[in-house]
Amino acid sequence: MNENALKNIRVVLTRPSHPGNIGAVARAMKTMGLNDLRLVTPRRYPDPEADARAAGAIDVLAIARVHDTLEQALEGCVLAVACTARHRELRHEVTDARGAAQALLDTVGVAGHTAALVFGNETAGLTAEEAGACPLWATVPTSAEFRSLNIAAAAQIFVYELRLAALARAGAQAAPAAPEFEPATLDEVAALRAHVMQVSARTAFYNPVSSKRLEPRLRRLLARARLDREEVNILRGFLNALFPPSS
Amino acid sequence: MNENALKNIRVVLTRPSHPGNIGAVARAMKTMGLNDLRLVTPRRYPDPEADARAAGAIDVLAIARVHDTLEQALEGCVLAVACTARHRELRHEVTDARGAAQALLDTVGVAGHTAALVFGNETAGLTAEEAGACPLWATVPTSAEFRSLNIAAAAQIFVYELRLAALARAGAQAAPAAPEFEPATLDEVAALRAHVMQVSARTAFYNPVSSKRLEPRLRRLLARARLDREEVNILRGFLNALFPPSS
Repeated sequence: MNENALKNIRVVLTRPSHPGNIGAVARAMKTMGLNDLRLVTPRRYPDPEADARAAGAIDVLAIARVHDTLEQALEGCVLAVACTARHRELRHEVTDARGAAQALLDTVGVAGHTAALVFGNETAGLTAEEAGACPLWATVPTSAEFRSLNIAAAAQIFVYELRLAALARAGAQAAPAAPEFEPATLDEVAALRAHVMQVSARTAFYNPVSSKRLEPRLRRLLARARLDREEVNILRGFLNALFPPSS
Repeated sequence: MNENALKNIRVVLTRPSHPGNIGAVARAMKTMGLNDLRLVTPRRYPDPEADARAAGAIDVLAIARVHDTLEQALEGCVLAVACTARHRELRHEVTDARGAAQALLDTVGVAGHTAALVFGNETAGLTAEEAGACPLWATVPTSAEFRSLNIAAAAQIFVYELRLAALARAGAQAAPAAPEFEPATLDEVAALRAHVMQVSARTAFYNPVSSKRLEPRLRRLLARARLDREEVNILRGFLNALFPPSS
């Protein structure tokens, strides 16, 4: 199987409270062939508890990168999957761990693109803003009586599904189809969104209240659309043509 | 879905060293709807570390039973699955976590039979004897570079697969087929095996060396056969007829 595909999927922990969980996630990743761990403002890190729980996966911790913002941790990613128990939000695309694995491998498997699995804080989960930065959301089915999966246990399930999906693809006979387009990165999509908002603020139709509602809708729409780079360029060119940047 | 099916699958930890892992397994079980935890000679239990890692699954720990032997922990079970990284042993039936979930639900789903998932010690795994007591073995696919799954992480994967399999069955339209027979429990099969060995020792063909090789083969054969209770009775009646018990 193509181990590199799995190595192009990073795991991002946002604001983790317990260093033991960071170590356990590193171990879970390494057992399934992933090694790119990103930490956004961890409360305690590095920490001996993280090392202890990582056991033989200390090398994953050694190369883990710490970021100030989720945006930085996702830099260069073409897809980010929010692992979340939220699933009643309007219109956001939601799948399960198995579906997320397929979507992630679709992204990284063909042309070496980079993607991310994003986990929230142990107690509070992902904020609406953090989840909103991810085009796809994924949940793990749990008992209705007790939904409280430990973060390392949830990460283990997601990376296990990734490995099974990668193995299944390695076993499939057909060669992967050549990519027809270059997908846009999340930064590029965010820049397009900002561009739309900026243009909206400059139009004669501008209304601060309706504009506030516009952004989340736009975010969800763009999340579902999975634009390629050329499409982003075309749309931005179009906006520029309509409202030339102030010079 | 039929939550009772999942509650008829017990999780057995043999000789666990770290109480934290016991708590984490309890939490993993409860998230997926299982609640019958058995501990065979745990090194430290009860223990505050087990309680801490169980988090909201403290009720699973409260009803967990401690046993002196694996045999006692498996009492009444019709199927036991050894969760193990061993997979080169001769002739033993081996599946993966997904296959194990199907086999376990086939067992408990129809007529309320009881089955078990069996995990070994964190460092040493299952002994040959412990694994041999389980008709089916199951592994989790891991990276060749690092196979060291934490026991609670492995348990999380198995119980997750159990829940997905149970959900898939609940979604299927067809009513389950009525059981055609009453499967034999593991004790009944073990008694049959002992009976065969005892009879073998009394025959004119008895040879201590070949007899030593006979037992593991017989064990594997019976593991694959999945006898029902009536078959066990017939075989034992047959043995009794050939070699009447000494009176």
